[in-house]
Amino acid sequence: MTHDLEQTIALIERTPKVLNTLLRDLPDEWTMRNEGEKTFSAYDVVGHLIHGELTDWLPRARRILESGESKPFDRFDRFAQERESKGKSLPQLLDEFARLRAESIRQLRALNLQPKDLERKGKHQVLGTVTLSQLLATWAAHDLTHLHQLSRVMAHQYRESVGPWTKFLGVMQCAGHSE
Amino acid sequence: MTHDLEQTIALIERTPKVLNTLLRDLPDEWTMRNEGEKTFSAYDVVGHLIHGELTDWLPRARRILESGESKPFDRFDRFAQERESKGKSLPQLLDEFARLRAESIRQLRALNLQPKDLERKGKHQVLGTVTLSQLLATWAAHDLTHLHQLSRVMAHQYRESVGPWTKFLGVMQCAGHSE
Repeated sequence: MTHDLEQTIALIERTPKVLNTLLRDLPDEWTMRNEGEKTFSAYDVVGHLIHGELTDWLPRARRILESGESKPFDRFDRFAQERESKGKSLPQLLDEFARLRAESIRQLRALNLQPKDLERKGKHQVLGTVTLSQLLATWAAHDLTHLHQLSRVMAHQYRESVGPWTKFLGVMQCAGHSE
Repeated sequence: MTHDLEQTIALIERTPKVLNTLLRDLPDEWTMRNEGEKTFSAYDVVGHLIHGELTDWLPRARRILESGESKPFDRFDRFAQERESKGKSLPQLLDEFARLRAESIRQLRALNLQPKDLERKGKHQVLGTVTLSQLLATWAAHDLTHLHQLSRVMAHQYRESVGPWTKFLGVMQCAGHSE
């Protein structure tokens, strides 16, 4: 499957609705618990996605279009949500993420990117040279990595409750892969 | 987190809506592709969940309540959807799953299970003695294992497109754990 911008948009525009459908009004036992020290709860994941809207995807796309490889991306703070989500409820975060993502997609469409734009290159501080196409594909895959993560984090809360079935449930064997 | 029936219901009643929000009208490149031979696409996952509604969760709960450990559960066919989904579109499967799940929850509530019922025991052909509580907790965890799976299967479709970012995306490292 080669990268197709419309397919990417079809996925990323659904993510806020998917998280809203899954998480809003779900008991805190599912949404506020994590997998242990320095791990994310579902609540943390939504805050992390908000931070991505503000500092990662569109800002990095603009950096590529404006500066190419001459100016590397700013570093992304994976734990920014510890500060930025403070005092906010999960429904507030879900609303904020939906609003920001809708605005990101509006701005992405307004860039009216052509195939030759997608091949333009930028510089990642650790990964080196990357293309705009790879950045936008990663936007979609990053949504999926966090859907993957939060389904695992939630399943973890029932690790004891499922008893012997734990061995048949793939999600219970997932070690997290440092996402 | 001990097993709480209302928390289980809160989760399982959301699953059809979550899948509908994520998958309906999404390009086939996301929903119809799998990870290779004998693996599930998102389409296959929905068919598998339908088969679970028909043969697994409520039927096994009833078996426990009616026969205890004297009559083991019937075996579950993990590949039944290859036959049963034939000729059906993904939207049809999503509708069918939503209808069946809503009916399952209606019947589950009608059982009016009390704490002592949840401790009743049944017999799994492979796992041996299990409790009704463990079966119902597994219903929720099984939904999550397939949300975990389909986010991985979908991310897999962008494995090449994300380029060097693949190493930062936990979902790309997930080997599947035989779910």
